Amino acid sequence: MSSIALIRDFVKLFGESGVVHARPDIEKYERGYRYGAGQALAVARPGTVGELRSIVRYCYAHDLRMIAQGANTGLVGASTPDQSGAELVVSLDRLRGIEDMDVHNRTARALAGTRLSELNGGAAPHELHYPIDLGADPSLGGMVATNTGGARVLRYGDVQRNLLGLEVILADADATMLTDLQGLRKDNSGVDLKQLFVGTSGSFGIVSRVQVELHRVPRQAAAALVIPTSHAAIPELLAVLESEAAEFLGALEGMSANAMEAALAHNRRLRNPFLPGEMPRYAILVELLSTLRPNQIDLSELLTFLLGRLMDVREPLVKDACLGRGEDFWALRHSISDGLRAAGTVIGFDISVPRSRVPECRADLVEALRGHYPRLRVCDFGHCGDGGDHFNLVWPAAAGSCDSSVIEAVRELIYDRVVRKYGGSFSAEHGVGPHNISYYRRYAHPTDRAIAGDLKRLCDPKGLLGRVDFG
Amino acid sequence: MSSIALIRDFVKLFGESGVVHARPDIEKYERGYRYGAGQALAVARPGTVGELRSIVRYCYAHDLRMIAQGANTGLVGASTPDQSGAELVVSLDRLRGIEDMDVHNRTARALAGTRLSELNGGAAPHELHYPIDLGADPSLGGMVATNTGGARVLRYGDVQRNLLGLEVILADADATMLTDLQGLRKDNSGVDLKQLFVGTSGSFGIVSRVQVELHRVPRQAAAALVIPTSHAAIPELLAVLESEAAEFLGALEGMSANAMEAALAHNRRLRNPFLPGEMPRYAILVELLSTLRPNQIDLSELLTFLLGRLMDVREPLVKDACLGRGEDFWALRHSISDGLRAAGTVIGFDISVPRSRVPECRADLVEALRGHYPRLRVCDFGHCGDGGDHFNLVWPAAAGSCDSSVIEAVRELIYDRVVRKYGGSFSAEHGVGPHNISYYRRYAHPTDRAIAGDLKRLCDPKGLLGRVDFG
Repeated sequence: MSSIALIRDFVKLFGESGVVHARPDIEKYERGYRYGAGQALAVARPGTVGELRSIVRYCYAHDLRMIAQGANTGLVGASTPDQSGAELVVSLDRLRGIEDMDVHNRTARALAGTRLSELNGGAAPHELHYPIDLGADPSLGGMVATNTGGARVLRYGDVQRNLLGLEVILADADATMLTDLQGLRKDNSGVDLKQLFVGTSGSFGIVSRVQVELHRVPRQAAAALVIPTSHAAIPELLAVLESEAAEFLGALEGMSANAMEAALAHNRRLRNPFLPGEMPRYAILVELLSTLRPNQIDLSELLTFLLGRLMDVREPLVKDACLGRGEDFWALRHSISDGLRAAGTVIGFDISVPRSRVPECRADLVEALRGHYPRLRVCDFGHCGDGGDHFNLVWPAAAGSCDSSVIEAVRELIYDRVVRKYGGSFSAEHGVGPHNISYYRRYAHPTDRAIAGDLKRLCDPKGLLGRVDFG
Repeated sequence: MSSIALIRDFVKLFGESGVVHARPDIEKYERGYRYGAGQALAVARPGTVGELRSIVRYCYAHDLRMIAQGANTGLVGASTPDQSGAELVVSLDRLRGIEDMDVHNRTARALAGTRLSELNGGAAPHELHYPIDLGADPSLGGMVATNTGGARVLRYGDVQRNLLGLEVILADADATMLTDLQGLRKDNSGVDLKQLFVGTSGSFGIVSRVQVELHRVPRQAAAALVIPTSHAAIPELLAVLESEAAEFLGALEGMSANAMEAALAHNRRLRNPFLPGEMPRYAILVELLSTLRPNQIDLSELLTFLLGRLMDVREPLVKDACLGRGEDFWALRHSISDGLRAAGTVIGFDISVPRSRVPECRADLVEALRGHYPRLRVCDFGHCGDGGDHFNLVWPAAAGSCDSSVIEAVRELIYDRVVRKYGGSFSAEHGVGPHNISYYRRYAHPTDRAIAGDLKRLCDPKGLLGRVDFG
């Protein structure tokens, strides 16, 4: 069907604000926050869940492909249209707002286009928050579709662990709506269908409403940059910290020297926590959080005490540590991605292995790269507490342009080791989209793919929805 | 097919220990731990996962119905055979043992027939445990099939939240095996198929291996029996406790006077924490847990301080509190079920509502019963921290026998209010089985049932597995 006829239909059905088709307005819907760009047939912007269902029914009747889009901050291209100009972007940017905030239940229900920052803004007066900690400001529906993790999974878990309910629209003839929004913490009275839509890249249904568990906002935090005696010591270091301060561990964010140097070179306002020439090979941002008041327990004191102990044993796990303002350390951590992009061509990774095997795996990857690609700089940083590592590589700008065949070969080398040798994941927290679907096909077990394909057909019989076919 | 032919085949395939068919040995497989009894065609006891798959293939080829059974401690009859004598019990009692304990990853992998107590026995030397706290000692596979909750969900979550991987056998021609046992904390590289088997009563597949997250064993605990100023004050009381001691809250177990009296009357070794004639209408076992040492923070002091504050404000939330040995309070709590059974005919419930609505819902249920069934005693107890209430009723032995039509009418009255008026669940943590499947049919949305039925057909095309058809 032609775009003009569709636009006329949509304007008739939903009014002028319900559809975007002209340049330049359409462009922001065609381009991802960081990666990926395509061309949309048009953008539908339903103002109610009823309108969303009408759009889905219309698309089903006309065999139109749909891409659900929230804030479009994903990193695998699953919410941006392809180049064909045949895909309708279904934007949830008008389906916004907190509909219910139940303080005694510690839950919130919101429309799927609501941004994380909006949810947290609404929860803040009650000293509550949705504790998924990210660099971006995604929509809640998008967070469900990627099962977002982030820097504080160690303490709070990922989206799946903090999700109590969903409302979802399937891409079938009736635009079937599944609803499970009661906000129950315990319910085993049937099949937990919402799990089908968690981390499935918007390809099984369009999330329209989300019911989440909120947590108490911490009243105090303490942070240190910890220099382990070796990278191999990190799992034992983590074990000791968990043994001595399990309830308070908020984050353990590892940063390689190359990653920190790139951040410091790029963002001149950052404070360098190290003396000139004394950049350690690896540092870990250790953060403790608590809702307790400092007169009940002082986290800075506890952290100082623990780090002292870790340095003073016969076989120390910690070489040195800087205590300081958490904001400074987090600013350093959050400047890494931009710093790496400024330094050259980034080959980004989002791998995970059992956290006990991170040092072994990382050493193996570094060694393999050294032989084959001596120009590539390993600038990794990651979530030591849950085995996630953004094993990012930089081809320095000074070394000229980086051939795309090199990038592909490097990806395959890294992923093959991570997945096949260490039983790890090629996508720990970014989900699956057009940018990495080829690796899904490479590593997913044929049995799993067959069932995933069956599930897709159940929810989306014509295969109209999303950019990912898990089959 | 006749049982004799089947038994000969099984003995040929798996040896004498692989099959049980004679009385009295077979009887323990035919009777549930607390409820339900039937008659099995025979009991297959695979010694390896390979044998388990052979049995499933055999059953598929011969159209034999199968009931997977772990420790058979479930409360809804999903793992006991029906009366037909045509169902094969597939017992996992030989598929036992911890296969991997990764201390630095804080994970364990075990065969599905492994008991919770065995897992915790293996984890204890590492100061770790699987923190699902229950009255029974279920198998790990059974815990997955019911998504067990228990008394410490508030702190640790349910089985789903602590499950990192599964191996499952589907009831298709090939006995397809799905495997996801890498022990990753972050993995979004495909569809999370294991969720299909969590809380689905063993009707979508037979769990053969389980990979779980373990937690640090607490080093200290403090407990009090807290008497709220009113039942309506409980949600605010919980909110204050969460605000002041969020990290340490281990359990909030509510107990009605009738429930405590029944426990005390039945179990003479229990210490009555109250003065004669001063039994409160409702009491809450509040427990704080921590891995911290008492010289870092003293939980008894913290709890005393908090309860004092809750009594001394202008509108107190707490009328009185007994501090004491946690074991004594837990013994009281754990004696309730037996105490109620000794007192008469129990009509048991496992309901949940948003925890903010528990008082309103409970008052409404009590009121409704008072009018229609004045002889029934409300003896409820439950998990105030997550909105679960075992709203158990006792028809006193002294009142003669209780008609089964009364029981059905009472169930319907309670469930209708809980589900339809309060958006609650008729099965919070016991799952769905033959004992409550009629309520699933009564309350589940037709759309959800249709999809659940499709999922069932995907996993079990001939409908051979389990006692529950979610369609």
